Amino acid sequence: MNELLMDNWSSWVHIAGTLAFATTAVLAVAPRGIDLFGATTLGIITAIGGGTIRDIILQVPVFWANAQYYIWLAAGASVITFYANSLLTRKYINMLILHVDAIGVSLFAIQATHKVWKLGFAMPFIGPLTLGIITAIGGGLIRDVLAGRQTLLMSRELYAIPIMLGCVLFILILNYLPAYDFVGSLISIALIYALRAAAIHKNLTVPNWMAISPKEN
Amino acid sequence: MNELLMDNWSSWVHIAGTLAFATTAVLAVAPRGIDLFGATTLGIITAIGGGTIRDIILQVPVFWANAQYYIWLAAGASVITFYANSLLTRKYINMLILHVDAIGVSLFAIQATHKVWKLGFAMPFIGPLTLGIITAIGGGLIRDVLAGRQTLLMSRELYAIPIMLGCVLFILILNYLPAYDFVGSLISIALIYALRAAAIHKNLTVPNWMAISPKEN
Amino acid sequence: MNELLMDNWSSWVHIAGTLAFATTAVLAVAPRGIDLFGATTLGIITAIGGGTIRDIILQVPVFWANAQYYIWLAAGASVITFYANSLLTRKYINMLILHVDAIGVSLFAIQATHKVWKLGFAMPFIGPLTLGIITAIGGGLIRDVLAGRQTLLMSRELYAIPIMLGCVLFILILNYLPAYDFVGSLISIALIYALRAAAIHKNLTVPNWMAISPKEN
Repeated sequence: MNELLMDNWSSWVHIAGTLAFATTAVLAVAPRGIDLFGATTLGIITAIGGGTIRDIILQVPVFWANAQYYIWLAAGASVITFYANSLLTRKYINMLILHVDAIGVSLFAIQATHKVWKLGFAMPFIGPLTLGIITAIGGGLIRDVLAGRQTLLMSRELYAIPIMLGCVLFILILNYLPAYDFVGSLISIALIYALRAAAIHKNLTVPNWMAISPKEN
Repeated sequence: MNELLMDNWSSWVHIAGTLAFATTAVLAVAPRGIDLFGATTLGIITAIGGGTIRDIILQVPVFWANAQYYIWLAAGASVITFYANSLLTRKYINMLILHVDAIGVSLFAIQATHKVWKLGFAMPFIGPLTLGIITAIGGGLIRDVLAGRQTLLMSRELYAIPIMLGCVLFILILNYLPAYDFVGSLISIALIYALRAAAIHKNLTVPNWMAISPKEN
Repeated sequence: MNELLMDNWSSWVHIAGTLAFATTAVLAVAPRGIDLFGATTLGIITAIGGGTIRDIILQVPVFWANAQYYIWLAAGASVITFYANSLLTRKYINMLILHVDAIGVSLFAIQATHKVWKLGFAMPFIGPLTLGIITAIGGGLIRDVLAGRQTLLMSRELYAIPIMLGCVLFILILNYLPAYDFVGSLISIALIYALRAAAIHKNLTVPNWMAISPKEN
């Protein structure tokens, strides 16, 4: 696809992911009790944290330095979610968190993989894959650590594997079918979201041969 | 004010903040039991952590690379506090932590806002504000995460809002009254400290309409 | 020693440390229950985390960008350990964790001190010492925070002091006996490992005058 159009598309994907992550962060920490400032700070950190780590490792300016609207969008989504939170029932919120988060991680993973690919960092595989995953889950990990929640790495939910599969698929497309980068990004985003949605609704966990159960003592 | 004098003043502010943060870090973790090395490490991390994150995001050399005395000062203050800790009563220590920390955050927030302003990062508002706040609370957040304490983001105490107000005031002065940068920095530091002191002595918390209470289940 | 040989030796030290850290990370988090992806991610983070922070502070490209085999080695060691874990008894694993970790920290601390020394960062003392310690314990700190474990900074075990002593010894050798850098690195690695092994088998803790006991309330 035309490179300018792909960059443009990438920006919209990033904006949608930012809104999703700020929203899901505030919904996730609200049940523990929090004030507007803490919620907004965690919303912004969740939305920009993964991409900030990625840019620091890439040794490029952090993306929000020249695109400050990402901070404003994350702050705005956080404040709106903070006040909307009390209007929603607990059960509905829990489902909303899972789906909005699934949208966020699929968008961020693929957008970041594309950015790293264009910059040619640690090519062709390790750079786009590791930084794609870090961008997708880094903000959420920082949020959970700061909020005192268990991080997703210690959960058996099918979470990170869908992200990894989507990134690998997109890297293969960028390598072998570069003309199909736009369609490929759509398919890869859809793959991650579909696997996450299946995991949520079927309560899918990682199969037993890929997991160790907690031990007493 | 003369630029050289302002830089000089900024250094003294930074030194005083470093001593305050190392002291308060050791007092805060001591009740859990800790050894001299752990206490000194946490004292140094608290004192230089926020500024280190700021400099990494700014893509400039970390400030302590060419001003190693910041490490020595933080280490010295940590060791002295470690041994002085047992001489103080619990109640006195608790009050001391709050006030010394209030001094530290007000000094760090305004000094960092000034540094970012001079470097012209993400101007005129987002850069100085976000990095001012990160410098003021970043070291304390890392300390609390490493020590297994609840971070301030999950507390309803009036903590971050005073910092934010002080940074905003100083940014407005730098924008519209640049000739008054020195007096402006004094007023902004005083504002943050006064609001924190009021919060400490009146047990001020964030008002109800800006907070969500913890939910059962 | 010939500089090329020393660099070569440094690479092998780094590789051995990487395998040790990935192994020990997976063994440490396995008792809490974890899946293959979480274990591998924590294994990789533990193995490359400290060195990544070091390189970011040094403002050089992260070491694994141009040496991607570090990621593959850490991933491979993590997967093998994940499946080998169930074959080992708990008591044997606990002892293995301690010794393999002791090997890892001694190798990483000395290799990093050497790298920072060659780059001339914050010389002659603060840079090599602080970044040597950060490289040795940084990955483990991130692992413990992400896994919800108590970090070593809050433990009275004799852990960080051996690392510090080894780094100081190696810095002194690099300063005053630069011709003996190779032998010096061996002696410094052996010193750290010997002190750690003594601490493990004699249950050595930090002496009372260097520690504060936990206080009730």
